[in-house]
Amino acid sequence: MVCDRGFRIKIINGNTNETMTAGIDAAAQAVRLPQTKVVTVQPESGPESIECFYDEYLAIPGILEQIALDKDADAFILACWGDPGIEAAREMTTRPVVGIAEASLYIANMLAAKWSVVTTTHRVRDMVEKTVQKTGIRDRCASVRTTDLAVLDTNHRDATLEALTIVSQIAIAEDGAEAICLGCAGMSGLDSQLEKRLGVPVIDSVAAAVKLAESLIGLQKLTSKQMTYRLPELKTVKAYPVHLQPQWLRQ
Amino acid sequence: MVCDRGFRIKIINGNTNETMTAGIDAAAQAVRLPQTKVVTVQPESGPESIECFYDEYLAIPGILEQIALDKDADAFILACWGDPGIEAAREMTTRPVVGIAEASLYIANMLAAKWSVVTTTHRVRDMVEKTVQKTGIRDRCASVRTTDLAVLDTNHRDATLEALTIVSQIAIAEDGAEAICLGCAGMSGLDSQLEKRLGVPVIDSVAAAVKLAESLIGLQKLTSKQMTYRLPELKTVKAYPVHLQPQWLRQ
Amino acid sequence: MVCDRGFRIKIINGNTNETMTAGIDAAAQAVRLPQTKVVTVQPESGPESIECFYDEYLAIPGILEQIALDKDADAFILACWGDPGIEAAREMTTRPVVGIAEASLYIANMLAAKWSVVTTTHRVRDMVEKTVQKTGIRDRCASVRTTDLAVLDTNHRDATLEALTIVSQIAIAEDGAEAICLGCAGMSGLDSQLEKRLGVPVIDSVAAAVKLAESLIGLQKLTSKQMTYRLPELKTVKAYPVHLQPQWLRQ
Amino acid sequence: MVCDRGFRIKIINGNTNETMTAGIDAAAQAVRLPQTKVVTVQPESGPESIECFYDEYLAIPGILEQIALDKDADAFILACWGDPGIEAAREMTTRPVVGIAEASLYIANMLAAKWSVVTTTHRVRDMVEKTVQKTGIRDRCASVRTTDLAVLDTNHRDATLEALTIVSQIAIAEDGAEAICLGCAGMSGLDSQLEKRLGVPVIDSVAAAVKLAESLIGLQKLTSKQMTYRLPELKTVKAYPVHLQPQWLRQ
Amino acid sequence: MVCDRGFRIKIINGNTNETMTAGIDAAAQAVRLPQTKVVTVQPESGPESIECFYDEYLAIPGILEQIALDKDADAFILACWGDPGIEAAREMTTRPVVGIAEASLYIANMLAAKWSVVTTTHRVRDMVEKTVQKTGIRDRCASVRTTDLAVLDTNHRDATLEALTIVSQIAIAEDGAEAICLGCAGMSGLDSQLEKRLGVPVIDSVAAAVKLAESLIGLQKLTSKQMTYRLPELKTVKAYPVHLQPQWLRQ
Amino acid sequence: MVCDRGFRIKIINGNTNETMTAGIDAAAQAVRLPQTKVVTVQPESGPESIECFYDEYLAIPGILEQIALDKDADAFILACWGDPGIEAAREMTTRPVVGIAEASLYIANMLAAKWSVVTTTHRVRDMVEKTVQKTGIRDRCASVRTTDLAVLDTNHRDATLEALTIVSQIAIAEDGAEAICLGCAGMSGLDSQLEKRLGVPVIDSVAAAVKLAESLIGLQKLTSKQMTYRLPELKTVKAYPVHLQPQWLRQ
Repeated sequence: MVCDRGFRIKIINGNTNETMTAGIDAAAQAVRLPQTKVVTVQPESGPESIECFYDEYLAIPGILEQIALDKDADAFILACWGDPGIEAAREMTTRPVVGIAEASLYIANMLAAKWSVVTTTHRVRDMVEKTVQKTGIRDRCASVRTTDLAVLDTNHRDATLEALTIVSQIAIAEDGAEAICLGCAGMSGLDSQLEKRLGVPVIDSVAAAVKLAESLIGLQKLTSKQMTYRLPELKTVKAYPVHLQPQWLRQ
Repeated sequence: MVCDRGFRIKIINGNTNETMTAGIDAAAQAVRLPQTKVVTVQPESGPESIECFYDEYLAIPGILEQIALDKDADAFILACWGDPGIEAAREMTTRPVVGIAEASLYIANMLAAKWSVVTTTHRVRDMVEKTVQKTGIRDRCASVRTTDLAVLDTNHRDATLEALTIVSQIAIAEDGAEAICLGCAGMSGLDSQLEKRLGVPVIDSVAAAVKLAESLIGLQKLTSKQMTYRLPELKTVKAYPVHLQPQWLRQ
Repeated sequence: MVCDRGFRIKIINGNTNETMTAGIDAAAQAVRLPQTKVVTVQPESGPESIECFYDEYLAIPGILEQIALDKDADAFILACWGDPGIEAAREMTTRPVVGIAEASLYIANMLAAKWSVVTTTHRVRDMVEKTVQKTGIRDRCASVRTTDLAVLDTNHRDATLEALTIVSQIAIAEDGAEAICLGCAGMSGLDSQLEKRLGVPVIDSVAAAVKLAESLIGLQKLTSKQMTYRLPELKTVKAYPVHLQPQWLRQ
Repeated sequence: MVCDRGFRIKIINGNTNETMTAGIDAAAQAVRLPQTKVVTVQPESGPESIECFYDEYLAIPGILEQIALDKDADAFILACWGDPGIEAAREMTTRPVVGIAEASLYIANMLAAKWSVVTTTHRVRDMVEKTVQKTGIRDRCASVRTTDLAVLDTNHRDATLEALTIVSQIAIAEDGAEAICLGCAGMSGLDSQLEKRLGVPVIDSVAAAVKLAESLIGLQKLTSKQMTYRLPELKTVKAYPVHLQPQWLRQ
Repeated sequence: MVCDRGFRIKIINGNTNETMTAGIDAAAQAVRLPQTKVVTVQPESGPESIECFYDEYLAIPGILEQIALDKDADAFILACWGDPGIEAAREMTTRPVVGIAEASLYIANMLAAKWSVVTTTHRVRDMVEKTVQKTGIRDRCASVRTTDLAVLDTNHRDATLEALTIVSQIAIAEDGAEAICLGCAGMSGLDSQLEKRLGVPVIDSVAAAVKLAESLIGLQKLTSKQMTYRLPELKTVKAYPVHLQPQWLRQ
Repeated sequence: MVCDRGFRIKIINGNTNETMTAGIDAAAQAVRLPQTKVVTVQPESGPESIECFYDEYLAIPGILEQIALDKDADAFILACWGDPGIEAAREMTTRPVVGIAEASLYIANMLAAKWSVVTTTHRVRDMVEKTVQKTGIRDRCASVRTTDLAVLDTNHRDATLEALTIVSQIAIAEDGAEAICLGCAGMSGLDSQLEKRLGVPVIDSVAAAVKLAESLIGLQKLTSKQMTYRLPELKTVKAYPVHLQPQWLRQ
């Protein structure tokens, strides 16, 4: 007997920008299994785009809210390279949570000896390096390279493709990258074109996360509640709505 | 000529619990220089105590708000072991920001070859290890040990002292700790008593942070705006008040 | 439009033991997608079981032969914890190759802050630690623990389950493991029972690899031929059959 | 009640060069608290300047002698980037000992995500990298860069400022440095001018050490005598004066 | 009384190329002690040259066969940079086994603060980095640099010398190498000429291994059979000759 | 033609204790080649035994003096586990310098997958761990274990053997050590007896260093003068004798 039931995956764009949500959804729909239903949303609160630690931290409550309010999804995907708030998301539910950053690194690790992450503004390099470090995979990362595109600039597809091409070529030639991870959800959908130009595997992080979320569901695995990812302890979270009170998560 | 002007340091308790704020303030007042004015506050929003990633991420917007609303302080201290949101805090202002976690580690590093962090519930161990890692100091950490006290349990001073004694003794005997960092703001004020019992230096993290904040002010150093800690880019942060919009930070 | 074509995955048991091949196949069939066809084989040459470096190195040519002789599979799985010869396998073809060791670690990394690998004889501990290191994920590994079961002893299911239970409990209690990776293909199929006993996620490495191979196929990704995993250079490989000559791989 | 008693800090220039001692003293006096008394000395023996391991090791006995002979200081500062003999200094007394290298790194760590050390001759790079490693902070170091100035060349202030400017700019542009640590006591006093030129925080290592020594005194912390930094065991140290015999240290 | 008995060292060229075997033998004879007898052989099976993981894994059974069939040698040397199969070789016998890669690194470590490995084709860089990592020495490696010479191209001595000169000079100038390890057995014999050109120590890996094998014999040390390197367990190794059955190794 | 000329190796006991010098000499004479002449000396100045950083730093000038005054030796051995002052020694001359600590680790690395260092007083553990780290080999070190014997207590051979047996057995059983490095020159000569008791290789550090010094001489390799280990720059070293002035080293 094989695993054939339908899945429901909820993707949460970390940014409150609808164009980007649509792009993420398209990338996800393009790779999902027939039996998977994908819904892509964006938070009710938070920055239009995540381009620094400040943005990231203000985005997280809205992201977590999307998890708290959903009792149906079989798995969640955090669609912002940085996997913002992922440890908290894992505490909130037993249902698997996949970050697009970690997903892209695992996929890259199976295709290439070394890979680079190519991403947006110069200032996020430290933030992106910390994200790589959070997965535990560091030795295999050839470099983190930045295009200096703003996140919302990625809506300009041709210019984005051009910038990614140039920076990826530098990563390949100078840093020894043998695959490229697209380090921003806004770059989703450009992987095939870029792959043709570069001649190395290019990982669409959103697509990668969809397949890994399907994998976790297929394996019927739930997040460990042994210690670190236990449900938040019961307490008052001042000035937050009822659905973000730990009590809510236990219902 | 010497540095003698008055300083104003604002301490932000990460937790929204007044008893804890009072305890933090007392520990800070006890070590401040005569010329330093210390004010201790707590956020308007967020969990009563920070005991998991969920708590931490929901506490951060309230913490950052305390920075956004303050144009007078010469330096800020984040008084929750975990230094929640510290990278964002550093982006918001050029005025120095000190975390009590990092402060305690630097002080410990100058007093002992190896030290342990002794902290609250078992479940935070991974979170605390990540905090140590964030400072970049890892080789000198003998262990992270937990008492399994809840954060607010630290208001029971005798029981807390007892638990800290037992667990610290294990860290010294089994892990080779030669100093102890108190890994929770709620443990502030117990360092002297514990030091007498243990015979090794015990670092009160709040007190450590006060001295390092005074140091940064005395050196007239400001946070680097070169790259990572630049001011947040201008954009709309949906559903957040005006003083948390990047525009506000630039005024 | 979604991805819905049929896949063909070839699993290569690293050991030349038929009972084990059958067990691996059963674990794979249990989790494959309806549209996936899984075929499980064992090499024509090599040790009955892999329990040391000597066994591993003598098993590899037979494993690689199974790749050289197969022009149909969409992806390959190396079903021996140790991922024997995986870099060579990746050189031989553009079709994705997944190791069960790496697969189990990526899945564990998405479910738990820290995990342990529980495996067979005491002597393989160093070998297994090197395998963990090969993936690049080290910080997240709580421990490698051994049952001292021989690989073929895992055919005794009850005794194996018993030994895994005891050793996993030690890993959880003493090392801080929050999930368990079953570190031998022969342990496949025991994950659900063990999970019930332990209360933490238990990763069946073969099942994990099936889902990740399906993921790579679904993403239509091929192994990078940029540098490290290029096709082997043309040359004579003395005393090896024609299908293991590099010439063969280029046809 | 606040901490307001007077402190006495003894700074030991590692080099036996008076001009440098005067420069160090000036940098220290400029930042000390009103209640702090700073005395700067140089050893009776040892090299004019420390520019290699040979120099460093021959300087150490003279440095330690300055500690042995002083029963009054509340804290000691080792004013040579390399913190020569600091572990031994910590064994000799319970009074805190601060190295200017470690002090500058802790201060930099609170101001910037990544920093570089800019120092003297090319040949000391390995020595300086080892010093960084000794503090335990490695991940945050963007690079160690050398000007190829000899230590005593730093007495030529304009040329030194020029060289530091050029090399620091390379560190910022190529290595991602966001702050600069001046890696030689002879560079003290140039931080403000250099900061204006570079636009990033520049850490005067001597000044940093003064503030951290004041911090340790203010916290009333003493060096751990638990294990590594115990007093030297009683024994004869052949051909050394009485005040360097372990017996002396116990009086 | 001193150690003066005659030694017999068997060197196994990992490649099945006779010209290379002769070159290795010459390099070994040039440095052996008078009382040492060196015999250099090549496997009966395997690739002409080892230039990727595929080559390496197919070479290993033939290399191990040379150990299984030899009951006389006092020590073995694996003469292929990559030390192919060395863990298995150590399992097969108590007699010491030395790899030329590790040998060259230990020698380099005693002569220079940092060193580079200069080797053959660009594609082996990852493989060579893994070899360095296998020894445990990583901090001291300035870089792995490649000439893009094929292994058998090293038979062209002048061109090889020229390429090594150029690439080594880059390693010295750009990476901070202070010694060079020749990262291919085929480069043996060129160390003196290269050393004259470069002005830094150049380590002939084969020569280094001969001296370390003599050292182990002189110390009368045998490989540990405590755990990892125990004799292979008794079992059938399908389709391999009798002398590669574990049974044979126990006779 | 083979290497057969006579060698002259000078061993410098780091401690100023004659009984220990005699023991070191005996261990060296027992393994030297017939053509090697070994001379063992002790410094004119410094502590009777090295048991903390203070002792080590005061020992170094006397150790370096033994190198400065010797124009005949072909190689030097620093016979104190800690390799005190070895970087300076390498700066002073082109003739090879071998430390007994590093030598024992390289030898152990060729015999066992993991090894432990068993040494003297509890307080030196941090110092010994730093020595291991200095060689760059860290992954292979199972543990540093201490007997709490004072250095000069090792003159009591039976008690020393007993203590080493007990502590080594713990390292083997609990830490996974598969070989033991004797972490003190005073333990020289006990390796064979201990090896018989333990059943794993035991490395006499002095003996190991003799063989590696012979190896370096046999390979005709000299210390790199490229950068880090250049001759000390010309300058006055105040209050030191003429033969420790850099000028002397250049004659």
